[in-house]
Amino acid sequence: MTQLDWIAADWGQSHLRVWGLGGQTVIHAAQSDQGMDQLSRSDLEPALLALIETWLPKGQVTPIIVCGMLAGPKDWFGVKNRSVPATPLGSALVQAEIRDLRVSLHIVPGLQQNTPPDLMRGAETKIAGFLQQNPGWDGVICLPGTHSTWAHISAGEVVSFQTFLTGELFELLSDHSILRHSVAGWDAAGFTQGLDESIERPERLMARLFSIRAHSVLQQQDPAFARARLSGLLIGAELAASKPYWLGQQVAIIGTEGLAKTYADACARLSVPVSLHDATQMTLAGLDAARAFLPPTQRPQTH
Amino acid sequence: MTQLDWIAADWGQSHLRVWGLGGQTVIHAAQSDQGMDQLSRSDLEPALLALIETWLPKGQVTPIIVCGMLAGPKDWFGVKNRSVPATPLGSALVQAEIRDLRVSLHIVPGLQQNTPPDLMRGAETKIAGFLQQNPGWDGVICLPGTHSTWAHISAGEVVSFQTFLTGELFELLSDHSILRHSVAGWDAAGFTQGLDESIERPERLMARLFSIRAHSVLQQQDPAFARARLSGLLIGAELAASKPYWLGQQVAIIGTEGLAKTYADACARLSVPVSLHDATQMTLAGLDAARAFLPPTQRPQTH
Repeated sequence: MTQLDWIAADWGQSHLRVWGLGGQTVIHAAQSDQGMDQLSRSDLEPALLALIETWLPKGQVTPIIVCGMLAGPKDWFGVKNRSVPATPLGSALVQAEIRDLRVSLHIVPGLQQNTPPDLMRGAETKIAGFLQQNPGWDGVICLPGTHSTWAHISAGEVVSFQTFLTGELFELLSDHSILRHSVAGWDAAGFTQGLDESIERPERLMARLFSIRAHSVLQQQDPAFARARLSGLLIGAELAASKPYWLGQQVAIIGTEGLAKTYADACARLSVPVSLHDATQMTLAGLDAARAFLPPTQRPQTH
Repeated sequence: MTQLDWIAADWGQSHLRVWGLGGQTVIHAAQSDQGMDQLSRSDLEPALLALIETWLPKGQVTPIIVCGMLAGPKDWFGVKNRSVPATPLGSALVQAEIRDLRVSLHIVPGLQQNTPPDLMRGAETKIAGFLQQNPGWDGVICLPGTHSTWAHISAGEVVSFQTFLTGELFELLSDHSILRHSVAGWDAAGFTQGLDESIERPERLMARLFSIRAHSVLQQQDPAFARARLSGLLIGAELAASKPYWLGQQVAIIGTEGLAKTYADACARLSVPVSLHDATQMTLAGLDAARAFLPPTQRPQTH
């Protein structure tokens, strides 16, 4: 059986996901809802150890390479974002001081853009994974999620990028606004309608959000159509705003299965050619690429 | 001292507000956070009585006239919305069955628009109050709030209207999204900037929301500027979408002091002439106008 020699971690706003690996082979995987959003500095180590403690081999220090929200803005470990244009990974990890002697923790720095201001923490690792698997690829990478990111890639560098609040807004509106009474399920026809509405007249987004409620109350509109229409309205508005990114470009979409497919459908409707790539695979490939930058003394020995 | 002979009530999504009146003189006022959003059918009467029980004169049935969310969509009392074009009040109230014999409850029906679907429950009463004080007035009435409404008024009728989710969206984004870490207070310069951005390029709204966070993290932008900019971005997007309403029109804004002023500033920036009117006064004037439609046997006697 392959022996675990390093741990990959993606610490997002709402979740912590970890994998125990031997080389590039995943031996263990686990996750919890201990996202950075609800943690204080002193919670970090317990949250991490709770997931991985039983995996740790005896008699060695296991390196953990983590991407995501540890790279600021809370700045507990003095991680400096790298400014674009830049390669997604650079060549150094930031070692975080932690108390447990069985592990060492290494953080992938995030990227920032100064004008217009923007920042990514985690997407750079997926982009690195994608570029390792597709060397020399130029184009635009779209990473849908709670916050979706569009990034221009050229000559192995992230040239510029823009982040959208789309996923978080969809969640807030469908779970916490008055629209929550009117949306449930998914009917693809609703997505197409919402998408077309937003692409045709993106300036009318604010007018259309309440109309979801009105259609539901006055015309008993199917909640599955309504929920998909809400998604179409928001993703259509994102596409309208990200047009300088995708117009005339080839687009690689890196996301979880369902959401990536939804974005692919939207791009298809705009005749934008896309390829689809799994987010977890790209994260693991990116963190694997980052292993090369571990301090030499902490690189895992081959067993 | 004036004797209480009727009670006015505005039952919104998040609050219940009540006034005890003698004729047009307010004797008592109270409110609670027992909005319709969190109430079931059986909660209604206790929630109402908790506020007014001590006011009720002995030996008579006190009529309560209520506008707002009792007029559907839960339809507990079979209130039928009236379709526009229509006068804001019509000429009949819906009497709700309640158990307490000391009061009778009368509901002002809401208005609905069939194409495009829209509905208002409460705004029609403010509009009625405004028109009673400004007979013969034609133009556009803007009612900012959790949901803001723009209504075309002609010859005493609501001809058409459109509802926007702006206020609710502002609350969700500033209290529950990642932007909550970046916004607090109010700096009017931020409002103007956000407003100008949205009016100039309304299709870029989705791109600008995350930028509030990025400005805060990378440039330590003042939270007061950021919060006002968020408001400006959203209200600017509402104004872009409501242009068919306000373009070339005189606009009357009916709202609470701060918010009405914010909308007035936005309209001024678009050179739209506005007048400002207090929401509570218009609600009371509208409910007072509705008193004429109480069943004759339930009209208060003069004491």
